[in-house]
Amino acid sequence: MHSGKSYKLSEFIVWTRRNIYKTLFIGIVPVVLYEVADLKWLAIPWTVVSLLGTATAFIVGFKNTQTYNRTWEARQIWGAILNSSRAWGTMSRDFLSNADKTKELFYRHFAWLTALRYAMRDARAWETASKSYNEEYKAFYTIPERETTLEEELKKYLSAEELVYILSTKNKAAQLLSLQSKTIKELYANQEIDSYLMVEMQKMLKEFYDHQGKSERIKNFPYPRQFATINTFFIRLFCILLPFGLLKEFDKLNEGIEGVMKGYMVWLVIPFSVLISWIYTSLEQVGESTENPFEGSANDVPISQMSRTIEIDMREMLGETDLPPALQPKNNIIL
Amino acid sequence: MHSGKSYKLSEFIVWTRRNIYKTLFIGIVPVVLYEVADLKWLAIPWTVVSLLGTATAFIVGFKNTQTYNRTWEARQIWGAILNSSRAWGTMSRDFLSNADKTKELFYRHFAWLTALRYAMRDARAWETASKSYNEEYKAFYTIPERETTLEEELKKYLSAEELVYILSTKNKAAQLLSLQSKTIKELYANQEIDSYLMVEMQKMLKEFYDHQGKSERIKNFPYPRQFATINTFFIRLFCILLPFGLLKEFDKLNEGIEGVMKGYMVWLVIPFSVLISWIYTSLEQVGESTENPFEGSANDVPISQMSRTIEIDMREMLGETDLPPALQPKNNIIL
Amino acid sequence: MHSGKSYKLSEFIVWTRRNIYKTLFIGIVPVVLYEVADLKWLAIPWTVVSLLGTATAFIVGFKNTQTYNRTWEARQIWGAILNSSRAWGTMSRDFLSNADKTKELFYRHFAWLTALRYAMRDARAWETASKSYNEEYKAFYTIPERETTLEEELKKYLSAEELVYILSTKNKAAQLLSLQSKTIKELYANQEIDSYLMVEMQKMLKEFYDHQGKSERIKNFPYPRQFATINTFFIRLFCILLPFGLLKEFDKLNEGIEGVMKGYMVWLVIPFSVLISWIYTSLEQVGESTENPFEGSANDVPISQMSRTIEIDMREMLGETDLPPALQPKNNIIL
Amino acid sequence: MHSGKSYKLSEFIVWTRRNIYKTLFIGIVPVVLYEVADLKWLAIPWTVVSLLGTATAFIVGFKNTQTYNRTWEARQIWGAILNSSRAWGTMSRDFLSNADKTKELFYRHFAWLTALRYAMRDARAWETASKSYNEEYKAFYTIPERETTLEEELKKYLSAEELVYILSTKNKAAQLLSLQSKTIKELYANQEIDSYLMVEMQKMLKEFYDHQGKSERIKNFPYPRQFATINTFFIRLFCILLPFGLLKEFDKLNEGIEGVMKGYMVWLVIPFSVLISWIYTSLEQVGESTENPFEGSANDVPISQMSRTIEIDMREMLGETDLPPALQPKNNIIL
Amino acid sequence: MHSGKSYKLSEFIVWTRRNIYKTLFIGIVPVVLYEVADLKWLAIPWTVVSLLGTATAFIVGFKNTQTYNRTWEARQIWGAILNSSRAWGTMSRDFLSNADKTKELFYRHFAWLTALRYAMRDARAWETASKSYNEEYKAFYTIPERETTLEEELKKYLSAEELVYILSTKNKAAQLLSLQSKTIKELYANQEIDSYLMVEMQKMLKEFYDHQGKSERIKNFPYPRQFATINTFFIRLFCILLPFGLLKEFDKLNEGIEGVMKGYMVWLVIPFSVLISWIYTSLEQVGESTENPFEGSANDVPISQMSRTIEIDMREMLGETDLPPALQPKNNIIL
Repeated sequence: MHSGKSYKLSEFIVWTRRNIYKTLFIGIVPVVLYEVADLKWLAIPWTVVSLLGTATAFIVGFKNTQTYNRTWEARQIWGAILNSSRAWGTMSRDFLSNADKTKELFYRHFAWLTALRYAMRDARAWETASKSYNEEYKAFYTIPERETTLEEELKKYLSAEELVYILSTKNKAAQLLSLQSKTIKELYANQEIDSYLMVEMQKMLKEFYDHQGKSERIKNFPYPRQFATINTFFIRLFCILLPFGLLKEFDKLNEGIEGVMKGYMVWLVIPFSVLISWIYTSLEQVGESTENPFEGSANDVPISQMSRTIEIDMREMLGETDLPPALQPKNNIIL
Repeated sequence: MHSGKSYKLSEFIVWTRRNIYKTLFIGIVPVVLYEVADLKWLAIPWTVVSLLGTATAFIVGFKNTQTYNRTWEARQIWGAILNSSRAWGTMSRDFLSNADKTKELFYRHFAWLTALRYAMRDARAWETASKSYNEEYKAFYTIPERETTLEEELKKYLSAEELVYILSTKNKAAQLLSLQSKTIKELYANQEIDSYLMVEMQKMLKEFYDHQGKSERIKNFPYPRQFATINTFFIRLFCILLPFGLLKEFDKLNEGIEGVMKGYMVWLVIPFSVLISWIYTSLEQVGESTENPFEGSANDVPISQMSRTIEIDMREMLGETDLPPALQPKNNIIL
Repeated sequence: MHSGKSYKLSEFIVWTRRNIYKTLFIGIVPVVLYEVADLKWLAIPWTVVSLLGTATAFIVGFKNTQTYNRTWEARQIWGAILNSSRAWGTMSRDFLSNADKTKELFYRHFAWLTALRYAMRDARAWETASKSYNEEYKAFYTIPERETTLEEELKKYLSAEELVYILSTKNKAAQLLSLQSKTIKELYANQEIDSYLMVEMQKMLKEFYDHQGKSERIKNFPYPRQFATINTFFIRLFCILLPFGLLKEFDKLNEGIEGVMKGYMVWLVIPFSVLISWIYTSLEQVGESTENPFEGSANDVPISQMSRTIEIDMREMLGETDLPPALQPKNNIIL
Repeated sequence: MHSGKSYKLSEFIVWTRRNIYKTLFIGIVPVVLYEVADLKWLAIPWTVVSLLGTATAFIVGFKNTQTYNRTWEARQIWGAILNSSRAWGTMSRDFLSNADKTKELFYRHFAWLTALRYAMRDARAWETASKSYNEEYKAFYTIPERETTLEEELKKYLSAEELVYILSTKNKAAQLLSLQSKTIKELYANQEIDSYLMVEMQKMLKEFYDHQGKSERIKNFPYPRQFATINTFFIRLFCILLPFGLLKEFDKLNEGIEGVMKGYMVWLVIPFSVLISWIYTSLEQVGESTENPFEGSANDVPISQMSRTIEIDMREMLGETDLPPALQPKNNIIL
Repeated sequence: MHSGKSYKLSEFIVWTRRNIYKTLFIGIVPVVLYEVADLKWLAIPWTVVSLLGTATAFIVGFKNTQTYNRTWEARQIWGAILNSSRAWGTMSRDFLSNADKTKELFYRHFAWLTALRYAMRDARAWETASKSYNEEYKAFYTIPERETTLEEELKKYLSAEELVYILSTKNKAAQLLSLQSKTIKELYANQEIDSYLMVEMQKMLKEFYDHQGKSERIKNFPYPRQFATINTFFIRLFCILLPFGLLKEFDKLNEGIEGVMKGYMVWLVIPFSVLISWIYTSLEQVGESTENPFEGSANDVPISQMSRTIEIDMREMLGETDLPPALQPKNNIIL
């Protein structure tokens, strides 16, 4: 997540420069053919381009709405994880009178958070964090899950035995919650909590299963590729046809003017077709970079930071004072 | 679900080629009549087409929004099934101290998942999986529910007696949950669980009834046919009128040019009307193929894969190690 | 609900033919005045019509979105009734050990479903099922609630005494749930269920009150008439001005052509203004026919069919084998 | 709420006539200056007006969507009040075996409904019910809360002592629920209900607090004034510029025509600019009149009628037969 | 929140005057170059500007929808805090028979509200309350959280010891709820409430954690900066190109006119480009000022006022009569 005022224009241009190069090339070709090779018939009616533009605007708009919704829902899910975690803290502390078990439940919860955020950072075929323009931007910020291994992190929270077991399972986060359930059953069997309190704690586990599953849904179910595919095709098609549609519009301008530009107005098709194409492709690129909120890109939901916040708040509930520091943004980017 | 980067342009063109043929024909006829038969009066004002285009864009956009919502809701429902199933796992294991009954509840749950996904794959009159362009694409992927019979699959999870009973019922999934309820009542009657735990387990069954019913809602209530109908009519109408509206626009271009193309610009109406029509019909076709997320098409929600994931996670909770493998995509398609 | 592929074009044209006649008349008048009476000043600038068209498209689009939402929500409510009913079935069976009372609760539930669906079929002033084009379409399908009386149907499920009482009440469905509550209290007073189970069953009744109230909300609160009113006005206004705006656009075409059509192009205003008007009025008519999902029109939510499905599923839970048949569509329409 | 088919065109024109006068004036001025004072340079390019029109259409559309949502949500909230009230009825009757207390809980609930609907009818600075065109329409219908005083109404349901206390409190509805809570505590202290039933009844009170608070939210949080403000500005700006933009469009028409209208076409700018302006201002006025669903205007949510329905249904649950009559619409308006 | 009818035009113009100056400058430059320096080739085709305008309108519209949603959700969250607080009041009073503890729970709740609203008023890098046009408007209203310190306020509600502890914690509001939980545990340990009532009160704390977390979500997760960034770029680009696109449109007008304006029509580009730009930039500025509903700007959700309302209502439940006064708007602004 960018936590500053806004991206700088220079950053933005660097980030989108490949599209600028491409549309520059797409703009130069028809102008040269029209002016130099004198292929006047290349000019197509503006109405065609304008109709295409409307359809394209629609699908870009639709995509951006959906990608925005995906990121916003992702933030809601992790916000809910934060809320439920705080409640889990007071329950695990105040339902029991067994400080050891309380601590075990707290620390295994941190392990669950850790396992979940590492799982969220796995790569998927449709993610775009590895595209060149995103890859090069990674120099400006840090992805905590790439700095240390999951094992390293889990070691802080789990016993050696549990650590080995968890690392052997298919879905680590799910099995960590399953271990929490076993501890609760044990407390019930030992009559440290009554059946009523046990059920309340089970309901919290169910809630965490819900949050985890929702987070996995955003991760594992991409913006439908059939929509993404037509998006890409139509924007390209629009950018290719745009300069052809502008040829005549600018050529007509030669009539009304005098002086040094007379006869050369068509060359202005190049900058203006690049400009308009840049807007459309940038909208698309921004949408794309918002599509997958857990891929380790600059526009991700800051799940590492949020996990740390949870850990701080919960440890403070236990009366611990040696708290880990909050994560800080680097170049305004916080993950 | 397509689980790769995107469809290839070639795949897409093959998939939409029938519409291209049709719009090609629709484009050629007016041009030939205009140019060859010299029926100049066939050219209609662009304003008419443009007004039609706006209305058409609106309804295509509306439809795609709704079909996207249908697929996304379907994924949410099955995500919720996954989440509730994991919670069902910890409850069925940790509320009881009767490993046999726990296993019975687990396996009957797998049977429920199986019955439900088979029911979801049944055909409906409004589904489009059997349209020629979808039918031929099926060569590229596998629909697990078409590979083996329901009976074969249920046999793995149910006793012979229950299997016979379930196969005789109208709604197999609903009656499987009803059997779960009977087992819970039995546990309660035997005082293996108290009334409080019984109710909690009943609430889970209610949740599964909710998930099942929501899934059936998407399956049984199509995108309203009255809307689908006008969609089809208006897009066809637009594609038919489009080349007539373009005739004059391209004819005018003859004035400004010299050389070999002079006098032949109207022929360009054909490729451009095909191009624009292709965009509109493709948007429609993509929307249509997203409409029914359980029909066995390439853009379905991957309910077979998710059912398998649930089975793996739940079996792991029981400590089983001989787990079935996760389902893998074939040519990027996973169902 | 139409449960087939789509409406046929012929059906659709018949259904909308009155609007076609009207717009035909609206189209002929200005053309005759312009061409025959030579009132050339009747042609108004296209810009005026186009601006109107945009505003009209917006309000038609808005209305269709809202009517779609109304129908979809109606289906969700009845889907929820189905889900809760199945859960009511397992609870009423497995919380008690009193088969008679279980059956009483089941059958009174069927009575509730019946009373509710009959109430939903009552007429409201704003409903459009009685408009001529909808009325004549009723020949093609059956409205079960118009085939037999409510009393006839309730007789199957209620004792004679209860039947008399219920028929005397203001809101029959609400008082049926109130009777269910009395039975539950009785079971509790007789100690057949403990207070915990009683409350769970009360919660289910509360859920049914919620579903009923939501269904009544859709029924009793129309698409706001102030919006419906401006919709009608603006579409009419647009259809009236449209041919005036087209006059000049088609008259201009006379310049570029030769032959038999020369001088007669303005007559083409008639078919094209009918065509465009038809699209707008059809969108409006389809929206209107989706507005009230319980009025007994072809596009209703199939509440009769769903009530039957619930009855079948619940009876099967009781082990009954003499089940009523599922309702079948007639000419693709199922209610 | 208008409960008939639709408003009549004549009603609508009377209701919007002030805007028609204003736009008529706005239309006449530029035409006179252009034609009579011959200030031809007053004509501005249509493109400017059309760009403005698009932005205006967007914000009018946005506003109407939000005001529709406000009214619809208000109806949902009061629908939920109705549903919860019915459930409150069965609980208050069947959880207790103390008919006096049951009646006390019922009647205090009616008092709560009454206090809430009177509070909802208070005036707010941003409400528009007192605008002249709304004020004069009030002659056609009745606002029950303006017919009798709150005290008069509450007297029917509360003891003299409670009445005095409630009238002295800041938020009468909130303190009525607080009294309900005291009665429940009393029942619990007297062991007429166990702690489990007490909590269930408390949960219902919490639900009523939720409904009340949501209703107050709609009442106390207007459609944001910053948005309302720009709405008003931009629509006025559009209406002012519109006739200037039409001048040239109609002047051009003089070229193609002969006869009596020749040279006078510009005068047509007046009716057409009024017509288009009327559409935009009417959309705005309809939106505005839907904005505040509790202000006592003709398009309000019918909370008085719904409160009466609740009273009837709940009294019927008590076996009362001397029921108050349902409220009836007057000139199709029901509040 | 503005609680009056609407902003005055003069207020609005003062508030947006910086954009007017900027667009005035942007408008003058091309006109001077075109008219005075005679650089006729600077006129670009209107089609380019119009295409840009569409894309710009889309993104401004999208942003305003989302910012509206943010403010509306913020109001919903604080409305929910109000509702839950009232229910917390009746529970804390009627579940216990210990007036001291009841009062402690009430007053610590006020402390929580206070800590939360102070936290919401902290500044964030992306907030715009400190922009010059917002800063100068602050003279007209009061931000209660800037008038006294948090410590001062908390002192009213907390014991000295608790005050010191809370001020030392990272998240004060979260730890206040944690203290509430400790008090509840104590009541349970002393058998003043049974486990069932304890759990109900814990659930209320969970609800407050949810509300707090949701409020923090709106506060800490800005409207995504990548979207905000392209918004700003595209609007600027549009405003810069707009006068270039208008040059030719107004120059053409010189043809048709006579008199003093002849030859000077191009100068009208300046007011009209300012006018249109003003609409677009004002929409953007209004959107921006609605983006962050807790920043202390005039369009904030009135959380100080709502906290005071809660305090009044809850104290009245305790029978207190020395109630603090409701907060009043100053110049129509209430926070």
